[in-house]
Amino acid sequence: MKTILYMAVTVNGFVAGENDDTSWVSSEEWDSFVKIANGVGNIIIGRRTYEIMSDRGDFDNFKDLNVVVVTSRKLNGLPKFAVTAKSPKEALEKLQNKGFKKVLVAGGGGLNVSFLKEKLIDEIYVDVEPYILGKGIPLFQPNDINQSLKLLEVNKLSENTVQLHYEVEP
Amino acid sequence: MKTILYMAVTVNGFVAGENDDTSWVSSEEWDSFVKIANGVGNIIIGRRTYEIMSDRGDFDNFKDLNVVVVTSRKLNGLPKFAVTAKSPKEALEKLQNKGFKKVLVAGGGGLNVSFLKEKLIDEIYVDVEPYILGKGIPLFQPNDINQSLKLLEVNKLSENTVQLHYEVEP
Repeated sequence: MKTILYMAVTVNGFVAGENDDTSWVSSEEWDSFVKIANGVGNIIIGRRTYEIMSDRGDFDNFKDLNVVVVTSRKLNGLPKFAVTAKSPKEALEKLQNKGFKKVLVAGGGGLNVSFLKEKLIDEIYVDVEPYILGKGIPLFQPNDINQSLKLLEVNKLSENTVQLHYEVEP
Repeated sequence: MKTILYMAVTVNGFVAGENDDTSWVSSEEWDSFVKIANGVGNIIIGRRTYEIMSDRGDFDNFKDLNVVVVTSRKLNGLPKFAVTAKSPKEALEKLQNKGFKKVLVAGGGGLNVSFLKEKLIDEIYVDVEPYILGKGIPLFQPNDINQSLKLLEVNKLSENTVQLHYEVEP
């Protein structure tokens, strides 16, 4: 099972600004995310990310996407395509049981740390937008893990957006 | 006068870890910094960065480098090549008076914000190392400024280190 973390970040490492602002994310970045998510067929996200995406109607952009929301709460009124899991491991199991060999983790900064902590991430994509945010939600919430990576490739998604693709070292 | 911010960062936007750890900075990145600093002939840094660089003997790597330390304190025993300035503007004036048309700002995260706040940075280089730090000193200390950039170029400094070069939009 291969687990891929996929995130858009500012130059200074934020994934969202205050009030969850992601207006600095380019359409090219969003298209790239939609494409990879549709290809993989699933995403694992935290509760807050789920609610933000849901409120924005983001899920309309995907077809046959299996969404797993990692939360200890019971969420009411979940759409058919979404289920909850109590932990990163349970989220992976649920998707494995559905036959997936590849899964996409897509934030936020709390969930990303949970996966990193348990050494569950194999690869990381960060799409670096040409933007500096004063404050916001970091790619990884502050934690005690230092992790070295290996650069696999550098892609340009547009004139201004650079995609860095890494492997997480064992 | 052109002001360039030049920093090595982790994938998640830190410029140093706890206890000022920068062991994750590659020799290729350091060489690139030394080369540009020697070419420009000056660097502006904060007091803490000055002390760290001084303790590590970093300044031995430069020839004829003019160092301006931005601090409100009086620093004793400064070497000949270093002076202090009370503000970003005063630092720039001191170097302008010496005939420099280009200056290099090199951290830390507090000084970088001071320059950004006063709209004194024209270009930014971030050398992205393949590393995630759990916590540390961010590229910019938390602030209220959101700033869009324009990507000028992407360079590879080594197999694993990517340099992103931006222009700060007016």
